[in-house]
Amino acid sequence: MTESEERDERHKARMARKKAVIDEKIAQASDERGLLLVHSGNGKGKSSSAFGMVARALGHGIKVGVVQFIKGAATGEEAFFRRFPEEVRYFRMGEGFTWETQDRQRDKLKAEEAWQVARELLADEDIGLVVLDELNIALKHGYLELDVVLADLHARPFLQHVVVTGRGARDELIEAADTVTDMSLVKHAFKAGVKAQKGIEF
Amino acid sequence: MTESEERDERHKARMARKKAVIDEKIAQASDERGLLLVHSGNGKGKSSSAFGMVARALGHGIKVGVVQFIKGAATGEEAFFRRFPEEVRYFRMGEGFTWETQDRQRDKLKAEEAWQVARELLADEDIGLVVLDELNIALKHGYLELDVVLADLHARPFLQHVVVTGRGARDELIEAADTVTDMSLVKHAFKAGVKAQKGIEF
Repeated sequence: MTESEERDERHKARMARKKAVIDEKIAQASDERGLLLVHSGNGKGKSSSAFGMVARALGHGIKVGVVQFIKGAATGEEAFFRRFPEEVRYFRMGEGFTWETQDRQRDKLKAEEAWQVARELLADEDIGLVVLDELNIALKHGYLELDVVLADLHARPFLQHVVVTGRGARDELIEAADTVTDMSLVKHAFKAGVKAQKGIEF
Repeated sequence: MTESEERDERHKARMARKKAVIDEKIAQASDERGLLLVHSGNGKGKSSSAFGMVARALGHGIKVGVVQFIKGAATGEEAFFRRFPEEVRYFRMGEGFTWETQDRQRDKLKAEEAWQVARELLADEDIGLVVLDELNIALKHGYLELDVVLADLHARPFLQHVVVTGRGARDELIEAADTVTDMSLVKHAFKAGVKAQKGIEF
């Protein structure tokens, strides 16, 4: 056997063991139910990953609801997903980040209005995926009651998935979640003096 | 002044300082050019974040190219983005994860075929965003020459953005990238015995 053939054989054996382990895990994981996902951390990709899941869901014929709690200006994803009003219910609430408005009472009121919209989506059996974009920010600043939010999430339809995004996820939400991803920043072009780019940052 | 008013005032002052810092950074960051983004780590969201950026780009009228290096079966995002053949050129190459095929030579050949397709997209000025999904896996296993990949990335059109996904990004690629995000796993439903869900995992 040549060295290259040996390497291929070892690879084959290793992959066969890996396949056995993964197949076993898949066989064990049989629950079908709606998941609560949280995307937190200081890195990029929290919201864009949620919007990738929107595309994924739409590809499977699943209807989607989106509530943006903090975003001000319209983004590329909003322009795009608004093309499909039968498939995506899209609500951009709030009026920009809180450091733009500097008015705590107004931010609180806006967050509460947004939660009323979210609550409707969370009660709708026809909607298979709900994105609550930047909800973590609203919770972190105390604009919404955590207990109310957790209760409404808990009471949602059994098969409905929810994705919550934003920095600084509250511990109780992490506790309640099925899947939590921390997006951490390794390197960011913005810090190196590159302008926020259309199609990438917004 | 009541306690609540004082809190609001402090909030306002803090947010005003934050706004000043952020406005200054935005003013400094004036470069407009195509970015190289890398999504790595063991958490969820590497590919879905790239597909969220696809939606974002499409919303801005930017044309997109996608090459999937490893994926086997069709996913929700593929079904969805194939609805827009004028806007998205979508190529699913490879035949499943390497632990499914257990054949190193075939995987290598497939990766090289996929790179030829990627190279065409990376030479096309009309395409503003190229997603190279799971390219990191192909590089990690040595299925592609790192030098060739880096040279082709470097030679792409000046305004073209590229997103590379997959675990175990090579150091040289991280070095070459503008923005690097590490998606790390905090908690995963799959490990808790929940089946991979349509619209969430694929």
